[in-house]
Amino acid sequence: MKTVDLNADMGESFGPRVMGQDAALLEVVTSANVACGLHAGDPDVMAATMSGAVARGVGIGAHPGFADLQGFGRRRIHLPEATLRHLVQYQLGAAQAMARASGGRVRHLKLHGALSNMASEDEGLARACYGAAREVAPEVIVMVLAATAQQRAAEALNCPRAGEIFADRAYNADATLVDRSRPGAVIHDPEEAATRVVRMVRAGAILPDEGAPIPAPVDTVCLHGDGATALAIARAVRARLEAEGITLAAFSGRRGRFA
Amino acid sequence: MKTVDLNADMGESFGPRVMGQDAALLEVVTSANVACGLHAGDPDVMAATMSGAVARGVGIGAHPGFADLQGFGRRRIHLPEATLRHLVQYQLGAAQAMARASGGRVRHLKLHGALSNMASEDEGLARACYGAAREVAPEVIVMVLAATAQQRAAEALNCPRAGEIFADRAYNADATLVDRSRPGAVIHDPEEAATRVVRMVRAGAILPDEGAPIPAPVDTVCLHGDGATALAIARAVRARLEAEGITLAAFSGRRGRFA
Amino acid sequence: MKTVDLNADMGESFGPRVMGQDAALLEVVTSANVACGLHAGDPDVMAATMSGAVARGVGIGAHPGFADLQGFGRRRIHLPEATLRHLVQYQLGAAQAMARASGGRVRHLKLHGALSNMASEDEGLARACYGAAREVAPEVIVMVLAATAQQRAAEALNCPRAGEIFADRAYNADATLVDRSRPGAVIHDPEEAATRVVRMVRAGAILPDEGAPIPAPVDTVCLHGDGATALAIARAVRARLEAEGITLAAFSGRRGRFA
Amino acid sequence: MKTVDLNADMGESFGPRVMGQDAALLEVVTSANVACGLHAGDPDVMAATMSGAVARGVGIGAHPGFADLQGFGRRRIHLPEATLRHLVQYQLGAAQAMARASGGRVRHLKLHGALSNMASEDEGLARACYGAAREVAPEVIVMVLAATAQQRAAEALNCPRAGEIFADRAYNADATLVDRSRPGAVIHDPEEAATRVVRMVRAGAILPDEGAPIPAPVDTVCLHGDGATALAIARAVRARLEAEGITLAAFSGRRGRFA
Repeated sequence: MKTVDLNADMGESFGPRVMGQDAALLEVVTSANVACGLHAGDPDVMAATMSGAVARGVGIGAHPGFADLQGFGRRRIHLPEATLRHLVQYQLGAAQAMARASGGRVRHLKLHGALSNMASEDEGLARACYGAAREVAPEVIVMVLAATAQQRAAEALNCPRAGEIFADRAYNADATLVDRSRPGAVIHDPEEAATRVVRMVRAGAILPDEGAPIPAPVDTVCLHGDGATALAIARAVRARLEAEGITLAAFSGRRGRFA
Repeated sequence: MKTVDLNADMGESFGPRVMGQDAALLEVVTSANVACGLHAGDPDVMAATMSGAVARGVGIGAHPGFADLQGFGRRRIHLPEATLRHLVQYQLGAAQAMARASGGRVRHLKLHGALSNMASEDEGLARACYGAAREVAPEVIVMVLAATAQQRAAEALNCPRAGEIFADRAYNADATLVDRSRPGAVIHDPEEAATRVVRMVRAGAILPDEGAPIPAPVDTVCLHGDGATALAIARAVRARLEAEGITLAAFSGRRGRFA
Repeated sequence: MKTVDLNADMGESFGPRVMGQDAALLEVVTSANVACGLHAGDPDVMAATMSGAVARGVGIGAHPGFADLQGFGRRRIHLPEATLRHLVQYQLGAAQAMARASGGRVRHLKLHGALSNMASEDEGLARACYGAAREVAPEVIVMVLAATAQQRAAEALNCPRAGEIFADRAYNADATLVDRSRPGAVIHDPEEAATRVVRMVRAGAILPDEGAPIPAPVDTVCLHGDGATALAIARAVRARLEAEGITLAAFSGRRGRFA
Repeated sequence: MKTVDLNADMGESFGPRVMGQDAALLEVVTSANVACGLHAGDPDVMAATMSGAVARGVGIGAHPGFADLQGFGRRRIHLPEATLRHLVQYQLGAAQAMARASGGRVRHLKLHGALSNMASEDEGLARACYGAAREVAPEVIVMVLAATAQQRAAEALNCPRAGEIFADRAYNADATLVDRSRPGAVIHDPEEAATRVVRMVRAGAILPDEGAPIPAPVDTVCLHGDGATALAIARAVRARLEAEGITLAAFSGRRGRFA
């Protein structure tokens, strides 16, 4: 029997500025990636988001990014490796404290925005981030973009890990995402997205539009909550997975992704 | 046989901006209060400071303050209680992570600057801060300004705690500090400071210039590192305490201050 | 013939975080108070907001607040007077540059949030802010809360000024606002708000629920844009003023409020 | 008769954190590049620095950088062009206000740190920055690294400009700086630095260690103030230029660098 996790970024509000539809998403996902205050979120938002996750049994993840509130962590910033390590550790620790105060704990870690993009291309950078996290919390499960340098780094470090696919993006034959400027790059139709996800979960592989299936750990599916379409896709994916008899549950691997 | 701890604020550098004389102070103190990145310090500075503390066996403390880098946490900011709680938890968690990554752990917590001043006057505010810290780390020892609302709050919450006196400030008959504008308010002479400290440690009391001794837990002595005089005072206090046969050691109380 | 200005705070978005309904409000107001990046807004948001104002002939104001993005400038922070002066000057200068680059200019200045509240109670603080602004831009019109210390400060400094009333708040007999916790303190009904505004504009006075009219400069009416009710009130006030034959125009006083 | 300007970065302190030796440098330079609060400096520091410059007749420059206080503006950040333009405009406007309040005015603009490095390699990026500045202050003189993309951008835009050389760095045959890792890349000897500067000023050219002179506008010499050596170099350069009968004066060109 297949099991898969559904994750989404949350806790991206900042002070009185509301972002996303966290309450609605918490009814759909099994894992929440919570911003840690440097690219989005603040200690109050973290506490509220994590309390909501605890109340619904949703797994809590630290979601560190670059210290860039205006840019929402989407701008590439070139940091020395030690600075990068400390940046991840600082945010992970803050998240652990807020989780504990909310009655939960940090189960996983997922990199945000430009930091994630850079780590998906640069195994050394990904290793720096994951190695730093492990110094603080050896048990934390690293959520990696499947079939990228993130996955290779987590494997090299033998971190507990979970492989992630996107519900709403088309893949190239080399497992990279189809550029957003290309037609069909972004899936807008909820039923199409659901169909793709079910196929990839069953196949245990990324299925590009052209080319052969790419075997990959399909442990968790990335959903979005910004915009009505995103939420509709999230709900359709969940409904279809349930209809297909696939179990939805937060990943829980200690050694290897679901081991 | 008497035992006392010597503490100082450290890790207040920020990026390339050096503050204080941390290396020299680490040779004198037994506890270091490490800024947590919101009023001073940054993740790199925290890591370097804590690694230095670990190497010298100096106890590590989280030293949270208001999120005010320009003002160095010295400006009073009025926050809702929940925001205050989360502010302390966030910084404590970040400090715990950086300590773990440096091979140590956070043993104590001391409030910084305006936050400390406000907590020394307002028991409710102090309780909010210490109660919040306890939710994250029940074992953390709270460093309180002796004979202030900080001490009363820690007692009311039955927190592990350590009472603190100042080496270089004169006290009023009600245990408050003599206003800096008054002559004699600040002690500049290292030997005079050392004499005062020894007397207070032996008496287990705050000794005001006028009026009766005020029994108080004298568990730790606050030293400073900014300016040549401060370092001279720190060294003189340490030398005199050692000469008097008083043991210098980081406090370690679990229930009550040294129990 | 009566003339009055309608103003609203704008440009409070920050990075990708949208706040308010600026586009809709720009169709209603004659003056826009633009956040300057320290409590809300950022250089991109300032440029977009000011360009929109220029395109619609809406007067541009600098709207400085405390440097507190998380707290949205609503928390009281105690600053030395020189720091307060420089804080206002810095933000005013930044606003002037963004206005120039947008093809406009800064016509007025209005204090934001906690800074405004403090200035409405403390004439010395208000004088510090307005005096600082005048050093940078002697011609800038200061928008003051009518019948408060803000007005007295602007009069004492003989600044160009415009007196402001609220469309949606009830007044006490001493011209202070009825506390929000009291019934009737906040007006939710657009037609009631419109009626009150017209009466105050015609009377040239603040009209408290109980007690005598308080003669005051009623040069501009503060509208809000957050929430459907606020926008409905804004539109109702504008429609009624037009129906009553009152001219809507940005104030333009050089000496004294409309002189 | 030759005239040259001496410039240095200043106003890099932040809150209570002192950086540099501004008072000593103000006795040496004829132009001060003042940090604008986003990578270094704050409104109080800007006011103090600019007041000092006004008192000594030193020309004031805005010295904008990336919004990165921890990294001191030395980290490359990739921004959309519009964001870059607004970033420069915001800081220039803030500097103009602080200069006005200090009794002076902003005469020039020099990019800081990583922003300067990127602009010296990328003419498009340099044009975006200088074009943005010109929208705010058409008269501002752009200080460009001689014989780099900065110079080409300023020429293409026909901005008032001043070409800059370094006193303490060796040049390659293509006018780039010798990499710091190479021996002789950084000049530590004050007399050697002075000799090089005099030769380049007289030649109106950059003189690489190997290869032919590179004709370039040598309008201003960049000095540093951090470290005893830097200040010694600054003083030696000034003394030698004076001894050689070269006039020291802030550049004042309107069209073309000194035209």
